[in-house]
Amino acid sequence: MRTFVLPVLVGFGDCDPGGIVYYPNYFRWFDASTHAMFAAVGETWDRAQREKGWIVWPLVDAGATFRAPGRANERIEIRSTIVGWTRRTFRIEHRATRGDTLLVEGWEIRCIGEPHPDDPQRLRAVPIPASLHQLFD
Amino acid sequence: MRTFVLPVLVGFGDCDPGGIVYYPNYFRWFDASTHAMFAAVGETWDRAQREKGWIVWPLVDAGATFRAPGRANERIEIRSTIVGWTRRTFRIEHRATRGDTLLVEGWEIRCIGEPHPDDPQRLRAVPIPASLHQLFD
Amino acid sequence: MRTFVLPVLVGFGDCDPGGIVYYPNYFRWFDASTHAMFAAVGETWDRAQREKGWIVWPLVDAGATFRAPGRANERIEIRSTIVGWTRRTFRIEHRATRGDTLLVEGWEIRCIGEPHPDDPQRLRAVPIPASLHQLFD
Amino acid sequence: MRTFVLPVLVGFGDCDPGGIVYYPNYFRWFDASTHAMFAAVGETWDRAQREKGWIVWPLVDAGATFRAPGRANERIEIRSTIVGWTRRTFRIEHRATRGDTLLVEGWEIRCIGEPHPDDPQRLRAVPIPASLHQLFD
Repeated sequence: MRTFVLPVLVGFGDCDPGGIVYYPNYFRWFDASTHAMFAAVGETWDRAQREKGWIVWPLVDAGATFRAPGRANERIEIRSTIVGWTRRTFRIEHRATRGDTLLVEGWEIRCIGEPHPDDPQRLRAVPIPASLHQLFD
Repeated sequence: MRTFVLPVLVGFGDCDPGGIVYYPNYFRWFDASTHAMFAAVGETWDRAQREKGWIVWPLVDAGATFRAPGRANERIEIRSTIVGWTRRTFRIEHRATRGDTLLVEGWEIRCIGEPHPDDPQRLRAVPIPASLHQLFD
Repeated sequence: MRTFVLPVLVGFGDCDPGGIVYYPNYFRWFDASTHAMFAAVGETWDRAQREKGWIVWPLVDAGATFRAPGRANERIEIRSTIVGWTRRTFRIEHRATRGDTLLVEGWEIRCIGEPHPDDPQRLRAVPIPASLHQLFD
Repeated sequence: MRTFVLPVLVGFGDCDPGGIVYYPNYFRWFDASTHAMFAAVGETWDRAQREKGWIVWPLVDAGATFRAPGRANERIEIRSTIVGWTRRTFRIEHRATRGDTLLVEGWEIRCIGEPHPDDPQRLRAVPIPASLHQLFD
């Protein structure tokens, strides 16, 4: 169970008129960390899309608990781990920290999407191949 | 328990290389809907900040379940309702729909923030005045 | 020479810790207005991409002059007009206004992209078909 | 004339359904680079705002020329230099590169803002103190 670390320099434009990080940005960073984690094991979105016809990695569920505010010019880290797999989904946990201070705890449940055969506008979840799962063992 | 409706035209730039809405944007729209809901009853962020010294309305917790993908150029609606209050927090539920199709169900738990007296970098939650609560009764 | 109007409700999260609109958002709105303008005449990105293999409408050049600050909860309008065509590019001018107040004047020069035959990572500009040009006459 | 370098890992969510960087993000990165450049010489937005009452650093004008597309998971660099000062404005030039490939050339003209004495909703440009100018000599 490897942990991937994404360093983030909080930008002025990532903060709102209250002077603290505008919260959807944490989900942006969680998403970036998930994609960087997959890219780090060679599983990039464009290869998955081109070679397998997958839509990568649509969300089933996501959430976060906010512990302390982040601010512009701070260097924070997103630590991300895949903590569980089901037949068609996987769960990633993310922790945003500034030094020893925990700012946000988040999680995403994702799947591998493909266009639904009954309606290409919808997506359905593909069974997760063991080969993908094993990249993170 | 009033429901506020925010119309959204999904932009090309709101979507990712999979061709569907990049999920953090739903939280951006939930946040926009919450702020528009407060502004609609006269409680704007700048008045709250200037007159009361409040940081408006920091997140305690947020989450979403994703049912169907949204795409560029679609007109969707965010329907938002404050469903509960505690002494220091309130819970808002959001539904993103495209016509009859439910795309995303989300929720936010928020508070009223003020700089913490022990450490102005931290925030603490202010007891919610009845006058604020009553605006939504 | 038709003018397309995109209404925008400025969000709290569209503003920065200075309390004014974070400037890249104007380009986001200019882009949204360009796409909505094309969609309004039936030329959506997905049809162009699926039927013609086009990458729609990559930027060649863009810029803006900022006249007055926008703020959260304001209703502004983006007025967009295609003001000129060359063999491979077209120029769109955008004006962001709040009531009678001009906030920002911007412009985009765009083309129709396709993967470059020598290197699919690069793009090259397609000659613009008269049929596209005529949609805006 | 120092050059500041901001490394950027292009995220999946920074790209659009055409699979290339959604162009307003370059302005986001230009802004981040400008702020990081000022922070690197000790001039952070919050100190400037708190101690001097400045709105930092509102845009007068900005633009960019797009040479080649960026894509998700690429590591790019923003190289930023302040190239000139007038009494009330300064000009920053930005180059976004991926290895030896120039992706985007951009520029910003900024000022130091303060609330206009006739109308606090407007901003006016403060004469630039020599002490600020000298930080970049």
